[in-house]
Amino acid sequence: MIVLGIDPGTASTGYGVVKGDGLGLVSLVECGVIRTRPRDPLAARLFEIYEGVAELLARHRPDALSVEDVFYAKNVRTTVVLGHARGVVLLAGQQAGVEIHEIPPAEIKKAVVGNGAATKEQVQFMLTRLLKLKSVPQPSDAADGVAAALACMMAMRLPKISDVRTSPRGARRSRSPRL
Amino acid sequence: MIVLGIDPGTASTGYGVVKGDGLGLVSLVECGVIRTRPRDPLAARLFEIYEGVAELLARHRPDALSVEDVFYAKNVRTTVVLGHARGVVLLAGQQAGVEIHEIPPAEIKKAVVGNGAATKEQVQFMLTRLLKLKSVPQPSDAADGVAAALACMMAMRLPKISDVRTSPRGARRSRSPRL
Repeated sequence: MIVLGIDPGTASTGYGVVKGDGLGLVSLVECGVIRTRPRDPLAARLFEIYEGVAELLARHRPDALSVEDVFYAKNVRTTVVLGHARGVVLLAGQQAGVEIHEIPPAEIKKAVVGNGAATKEQVQFMLTRLLKLKSVPQPSDAADGVAAALACMMAMRLPKISDVRTSPRGARRSRSPRL
Repeated sequence: MIVLGIDPGTASTGYGVVKGDGLGLVSLVECGVIRTRPRDPLAARLFEIYEGVAELLARHRPDALSVEDVFYAKNVRTTVVLGHARGVVLLAGQQAGVEIHEIPPAEIKKAVVGNGAATKEQVQFMLTRLLKLKSVPQPSDAADGVAAALACMMAMRLPKISDVRTSPRGARRSRSPRL
């Protein structure tokens, strides 16, 4: 099972690809960042993010795409532009036909560290432990992408309610805001 | 000269296509809305918006794409989700290689009515006058798309500083946030 995790950003979109062997062992396949030039128009930067994510989806053919949910920055303008970047990431996933999971930052921390209010350093420490890495994935946006992928894989490994008790409505697998 | 105007929205994205004959006469070619189902996941709705805009760009081959700039709603979540929709609209424009103009709502009103604080009704009244329509384009999101297209066309018809006085840096044609 392969999960692509994305931490969207206009300047730098972090990503991580993790692979599970189905027996509880998880390993890091690849991580990095998609960088865009600050002087380019927003549309050109969105195109680069979209192309980068589409390339990763085509190359790794993941079972799931895990996208960090919107972080509400203090600056509204920054948050809104971040929404633009997230939009093209979700579009790339939809076009690839992959299962999409949107996970809030606190849930990612809780899945990786066990505490939704964990610091960035605690998350990075646990990433190196869980994935048996010699050092923290760099830059930090790449580590955030890896954390998103890992959190998704850990959540998917848990037994689902639907597996235990058959409910007529079924269980909702992915969290997507409906507005 | 043809301009496609877009008023992005997650539930309903309004659009308008206007055509200028180069002698000051402007006419409406088509207008409408791209609607998405509220129960669909966000990624599926973004895909429908993207496909709808890409289809309009391919069919009308406009000289410019005019996208209403972000309206900062009182609800931050709504504004951020609107950013997602705008992101896929800008991406479609970039992929089509069309000139992209991002115009704030107040500038659209100023271009159409002459007053940046004009009401929706004043804008709709002027649209029917300028485009010689018997009635206001319906629904109102479609009228907003037409207004965005018209504002862009009116701004492009004005003589540019670069046409009057040659500056070594040239004039910036499109307004794009650089973050």
